[in-house]
Amino acid sequence: MQTLLLNCDMGESYGSWRMGLDAEVMPYIDCANIACGYHAGDPSIMRRTVGLALQHGVTIGAHPAYPDLVGFGRRSIACSNEEIRDLLHYQIGALDGICKVQGGRVAYVKPHGALYNDMMADPMKLRAVLEAVAAYDSSLPLMLMATADDYAAQQMGDELGVTLWFEAFADRGYTASGHLLSRRLPGAVHHEPALIIEQALRLARGETLLADDGSALRLNASTLCVHGDNDSSLAAVRQIRQALDALVQP
Amino acid sequence: MQTLLLNCDMGESYGSWRMGLDAEVMPYIDCANIACGYHAGDPSIMRRTVGLALQHGVTIGAHPAYPDLVGFGRRSIACSNEEIRDLLHYQIGALDGICKVQGGRVAYVKPHGALYNDMMADPMKLRAVLEAVAAYDSSLPLMLMATADDYAAQQMGDELGVTLWFEAFADRGYTASGHLLSRRLPGAVHHEPALIIEQALRLARGETLLADDGSALRLNASTLCVHGDNDSSLAAVRQIRQALDALVQP
Amino acid sequence: MQTLLLNCDMGESYGSWRMGLDAEVMPYIDCANIACGYHAGDPSIMRRTVGLALQHGVTIGAHPAYPDLVGFGRRSIACSNEEIRDLLHYQIGALDGICKVQGGRVAYVKPHGALYNDMMADPMKLRAVLEAVAAYDSSLPLMLMATADDYAAQQMGDELGVTLWFEAFADRGYTASGHLLSRRLPGAVHHEPALIIEQALRLARGETLLADDGSALRLNASTLCVHGDNDSSLAAVRQIRQALDALVQP
Amino acid sequence: MQTLLLNCDMGESYGSWRMGLDAEVMPYIDCANIACGYHAGDPSIMRRTVGLALQHGVTIGAHPAYPDLVGFGRRSIACSNEEIRDLLHYQIGALDGICKVQGGRVAYVKPHGALYNDMMADPMKLRAVLEAVAAYDSSLPLMLMATADDYAAQQMGDELGVTLWFEAFADRGYTASGHLLSRRLPGAVHHEPALIIEQALRLARGETLLADDGSALRLNASTLCVHGDNDSSLAAVRQIRQALDALVQP
Repeated sequence: MQTLLLNCDMGESYGSWRMGLDAEVMPYIDCANIACGYHAGDPSIMRRTVGLALQHGVTIGAHPAYPDLVGFGRRSIACSNEEIRDLLHYQIGALDGICKVQGGRVAYVKPHGALYNDMMADPMKLRAVLEAVAAYDSSLPLMLMATADDYAAQQMGDELGVTLWFEAFADRGYTASGHLLSRRLPGAVHHEPALIIEQALRLARGETLLADDGSALRLNASTLCVHGDNDSSLAAVRQIRQALDALVQP
Repeated sequence: MQTLLLNCDMGESYGSWRMGLDAEVMPYIDCANIACGYHAGDPSIMRRTVGLALQHGVTIGAHPAYPDLVGFGRRSIACSNEEIRDLLHYQIGALDGICKVQGGRVAYVKPHGALYNDMMADPMKLRAVLEAVAAYDSSLPLMLMATADDYAAQQMGDELGVTLWFEAFADRGYTASGHLLSRRLPGAVHHEPALIIEQALRLARGETLLADDGSALRLNASTLCVHGDNDSSLAAVRQIRQALDALVQP
Repeated sequence: MQTLLLNCDMGESYGSWRMGLDAEVMPYIDCANIACGYHAGDPSIMRRTVGLALQHGVTIGAHPAYPDLVGFGRRSIACSNEEIRDLLHYQIGALDGICKVQGGRVAYVKPHGALYNDMMADPMKLRAVLEAVAAYDSSLPLMLMATADDYAAQQMGDELGVTLWFEAFADRGYTASGHLLSRRLPGAVHHEPALIIEQALRLARGETLLADDGSALRLNASTLCVHGDNDSSLAAVRQIRQALDALVQP
Repeated sequence: MQTLLLNCDMGESYGSWRMGLDAEVMPYIDCANIACGYHAGDPSIMRRTVGLALQHGVTIGAHPAYPDLVGFGRRSIACSNEEIRDLLHYQIGALDGICKVQGGRVAYVKPHGALYNDMMADPMKLRAVLEAVAAYDSSLPLMLMATADDYAAQQMGDELGVTLWFEAFADRGYTASGHLLSRRLPGAVHHEPALIIEQALRLARGETLLADDGSALRLNASTLCVHGDNDSSLAAVRQIRQALDALVQP
């Protein structure tokens, strides 16, 4: 039985500003989505984050973004598809350079923030991202969001020869179509640890979740997105890790 | 007989701003020092410049700088040696990423502007740069300035296992120690084409130059730095190319 | 009889990169829209541009933009209305500071590029801009695009106590609703000098233009947007100036 | 009897990154040195910080820096004196714009980090800063470091018509010349609250401090620089405030 990999955004400090409990979370995750300097992460932060990932045997993913430090990459920028491909190559390459000197390498790509959202909302943007990954190294998987119907995305990935890693969330409520419930709605974010663990386990066992309209939602996710922002999310990561490990123990 | 390679700063446009006659100069040079985004060159400019270099069979060099767009990398920034290594890896990696998708690769490193000057003036900075290059890929040569006495630099390069490519200038006057004459002094910049060609040929033939104090200056340069800023420098590049080619013709 | 004021984007160089024939155009215009550092214009460029405007008695306008140097402020960024107000105050204040030390002041505001387009397309964005101007100094006019129906904009300006300066274009084709014809369509940009002068004069005399569907379009513009990018646009500015001056001569 | 004013760096968050306990410290200080976007502080952070200062009746100072977000303005950049004047006007103006819409204004200037250090170390840089302040508004005082001999600085301030506000530190050890002890030396930073209060009181009473060589050091400071980085420095600010208030109570 294959368990869910835990992926977490990492290296989101910048210069003198600290963000995220990277050192504390790293021992519990499988995949580190490392910021590449456009929304967070300067070269020195990137070096330290890569070092931490290598030390813990964590797989390194590039976490590229729109160029928007002040907006933390969360504001959509009307980039052309060509600009998107170029900025992906720049950022993936930069992180790969930082990895290389420590004996590591970028092993997958997960766009950040508004670029991630735009890619999920607009098939042309998804294609631009897939083309960029394929051109850089078609052996690199792209991490994106699992929804109720991944057919079109999977087809595009197949066409361009890029493996897709679908991710789900243990701490978020879902709509029937497998999209995240808006944060303005009740039930959008789970705070109850038991509920989070339960959702993680259901996803790991391939069981359905309960969507907000009461329907059963099946997500085919191979990885779970966790957060290392604060003590409470760190505690959740530890508990999810423990629960998932118990699941696959003989 | 080996001729002097011509190297030229390239890809120094940014966004909507244009700089340099890259397309016009590329056919005449051997090595393109391509800006990596810190003093000039955004990902799209970098892609186009790399494409142009590959099209003309020009060797691609990373031209990393201090992070100073507004100052064009010409103002020294008091970075630590660790910061210098990190920002070199970031920039070399970014350009390598852009190269990779077009089937190219970074083949040498030449720091830009104030970083170049600081490296020439301070052995600890030179060591930081050499360490950075060695850690990234010790097969990449570092391009730096030929002076009357390259012994210390050569020794450091040998120690760190990095090949040094020394460059000279055909359009600049020199002091007896092989440093460029300050631009505030008469004779600092040659404008006379005949004088520039003559100096290029003397360098190519391994002959001495006349330093500003009248002494003979021997520079062991394997490459000549040329400029593609405007029509007049473009004309000079063409003439130098022609003169050097004639030199090695049977 | 009141003639049309000529307004022109100015100070769009940045660091070592030059853009626009500012010194050549300044003698022929009435209003300089000066870049404030977010899409172009660093503090030193701003100082020189302000100095040039003051020297020629040209009215100084702030030309604020989204924070996007590499995209030259031409890419929409999904900023909140609060962020828009804040970035307007920052940029207007910065330019006012640069003006103040030379005895000048910001006398109106014209958003740049994507911010201008977003303001014209989305009434909530227009309101955010008007609120920002009113809060900074309600005696400052806002420059925006004249269309066939300026009623809603005028009403909003009145409500917030901000004078509106509507601008038109002499070198662009219009739709019946008074919007610029897409640059992908034929007739979008006039290159014929005679046609440009004719359109300028019709606008100055309060006569209608011929829209792309053959209908008559009346624009109530008090200012004409001209361009100083190159020799040809500079020549057009001179001719427009001459034609408009002749119109009001006794 | 006049007490020492407490000044504190404020508004040093940026985008999504938080720094400093601004809301907690503001009630206890007299002067807020507010970051202007070059080393920290975006327009929205600036608005909130200015609002907080106005709410507590705290005097607002501009805290301009070299353009170096990633280095937090702590790395010297080889700017010309003209560039320094320009970047000061830009930043002071920007903060003044943000203040103006809330009914406030910049009331003094204190350069940040490396710009502050360069100004203290190089009289030509101090002159550039003073000229910039005088040109912007000669009624604005410049805040700088009190040393054993302020004569040259005072003379230059007088010459340029700018009032000087000298600041001292309660938590730092001093050399005999009135410079801060290097952080690498023992006694450089006082952690003992009693020691900090004692030093603050000695400075307030106009008494001498004990320099590291055992000599008596007299600093003529009108303001004390305090820190709001963490709970411990916040506690120190409260205690210093209390001690100084007690001093001037009848």
